[in-house]
Amino acid sequence: MYSKAVASLIVLACCAPGAAWSQSALMKQAQGLFKPIPASAPSLPGNDSTPAKLALGKMLYFEPRLSESHIISCNSCHMVGMGGVDLQETSLGHRWQHGGRNAPTVYNAVFDVAQFWDGRAKDLEQQAGGPLVNPVEMGTTETHVVEQLKGIPGYATAFAKAYPGASDPITLDNVRKAIAVFEATLITPHAPFDRYLGGDDKALDAVQKEGLALFISKGCAACHNGVNIGGGMYAPFGVVERPGAEILPPGDKGRFTVTKTVSDEYVFRVPSLRNITLTAPYFHTGKVWDLRQAIAIMGSSQLGATLTDDEVGKIQTFLGALTGEQPVVTLPILPPSVATTPRPKP
Amino acid sequence: MYSKAVASLIVLACCAPGAAWSQSALMKQAQGLFKPIPASAPSLPGNDSTPAKLALGKMLYFEPRLSESHIISCNSCHMVGMGGVDLQETSLGHRWQHGGRNAPTVYNAVFDVAQFWDGRAKDLEQQAGGPLVNPVEMGTTETHVVEQLKGIPGYATAFAKAYPGASDPITLDNVRKAIAVFEATLITPHAPFDRYLGGDDKALDAVQKEGLALFISKGCAACHNGVNIGGGMYAPFGVVERPGAEILPPGDKGRFTVTKTVSDEYVFRVPSLRNITLTAPYFHTGKVWDLRQAIAIMGSSQLGATLTDDEVGKIQTFLGALTGEQPVVTLPILPPSVATTPRPKP
Repeated sequence: MYSKAVASLIVLACCAPGAAWSQSALMKQAQGLFKPIPASAPSLPGNDSTPAKLALGKMLYFEPRLSESHIISCNSCHMVGMGGVDLQETSLGHRWQHGGRNAPTVYNAVFDVAQFWDGRAKDLEQQAGGPLVNPVEMGTTETHVVEQLKGIPGYATAFAKAYPGASDPITLDNVRKAIAVFEATLITPHAPFDRYLGGDDKALDAVQKEGLALFISKGCAACHNGVNIGGGMYAPFGVVERPGAEILPPGDKGRFTVTKTVSDEYVFRVPSLRNITLTAPYFHTGKVWDLRQAIAIMGSSQLGATLTDDEVGKIQTFLGALTGEQPVVTLPILPPSVATTPRPKP
Repeated sequence: MYSKAVASLIVLACCAPGAAWSQSALMKQAQGLFKPIPASAPSLPGNDSTPAKLALGKMLYFEPRLSESHIISCNSCHMVGMGGVDLQETSLGHRWQHGGRNAPTVYNAVFDVAQFWDGRAKDLEQQAGGPLVNPVEMGTTETHVVEQLKGIPGYATAFAKAYPGASDPITLDNVRKAIAVFEATLITPHAPFDRYLGGDDKALDAVQKEGLALFISKGCAACHNGVNIGGGMYAPFGVVERPGAEILPPGDKGRFTVTKTVSDEYVFRVPSLRNITLTAPYFHTGKVWDLRQAIAIMGSSQLGATLTDDEVGKIQTFLGALTGEQPVVTLPILPPSVATTPRPKP
């Protein structure tokens, strides 16, 4: 656990006007707490990236025929070019049903400790199988995913190239592995804050630095730290003061549903704050659309602090410096259906 | 009207084995009836393409916030990389409602004489406004399209660059113009048949040439001709023999609903056969999934001909040579919503 006392001392020092030493101290402090997004995709344990697997993973990510209706793909709720999200409180899925929680961004998800708000998938590979068979998301079955892909002749070649030597390469495991390899490339490096962490003091302006100092001194960085400024641990929502039932409805006990441990009631994975200005609405319910309101709620519910409007504004300005470069993705050309391809069931 | 007698003579000649003169005659015949897709996008009258307008048009084409729900974009039903269609009998739109007719492909639509199955929009620009306000498609209103875009700060810059000098550039007209400019780039040149039309006799194999000869001699080319091998005129569905009510339901009178002219009952725009192997299911109802069945139905309903399995197979093989190169499109980075941006109404 990060020490608030130490942080406060350093922050006090760095707020003295014109002190070069203090600026340098803030940067050092930040470098100790946070890490920049790397410039290239990380490798996944036990799931090597090859050009053929990456190409297949991209096809599958944009493949609507993986859903029962043939209109919902991974990209429907995690849109590349739109923050990796869908800008909905909770996603609209199969037959216009609402998902249970707000769709987390796919961007930089590879750096999170686990996937989903409750961490029920240990990695991207395991996560990728979830929405496929969720009846309110893509609404298909594991068996049908394989039947469907085997019914589209072009995938035989694509899977054979991605999994050379496999006698029967079109399997659910291989679908998930390929999607994970593609998703690991959806990272957003070169945010102003990353440049700052890299030693460029001019990458943040004065207000952003004040916001950073507040972010540390108020205790936000106790949970929102590491490469994703969050995403690395679990925390109860409402550790000091529970927000209202609209924002934290009693029916969703978070990680408790995974671990069945009482101390995990209302515990969620701490979300990454990377690209947070692109990913409204906020929280697992998606009930808060205004980042300023989200910051204020975090102050009261997690830190027992009533942040002033000025403090909220400065923290918001700092969070704006967490917006990186969204990945540039060329749409895949998907293999055509033929007369015998299984048809949609909308 | 194309002369069937002349075609038959030429086809008889070209079917004599090994006759170089006959091959050349088939090519000349084809060159007279069809035109290749150009290598670059055509210009639109009164709607110049500029890099800024094209970039804006691409953003808007992929912009789900143009729909009431914020989950449906132009690309939802006209998917780039998937034949420019949605592979549904009729599209699923706002609140999972079904559209009235099968979604035509956006690919090469710029070369069609008019847009929609009934030709009710004269061009891409006019077409682009339709689905936005159709309650079973994107379900918004013309007023709200403008409100929505004005509520996303990044669009102010994008529209100003696309329409320099305009005092209030975010208008519905300018939305439609930009989308049309982007759609005009969604063309599929370099199909084997285009190379054949360009003089490369080896671009089609022997069976494809037999299919082409049948396509001409049986009379298909009377309607399916020109650059889009269709798309250039209107024709009654069931000119010789009406297909069953599932394929041609009595309630949809086609172009009659536009012109209110009795002779336009059950008249539809002849669809392009470009990329036809990518765009199942077929006909305005989307009730036929097998291209062979569609060819057989066309033979009986339009030409009064009972095509043999062998003839259907050869025509199908020829139609496969109409598949061009699908456009390679980089997904746009869409401008973020802010706290005051109008929110989705799913």
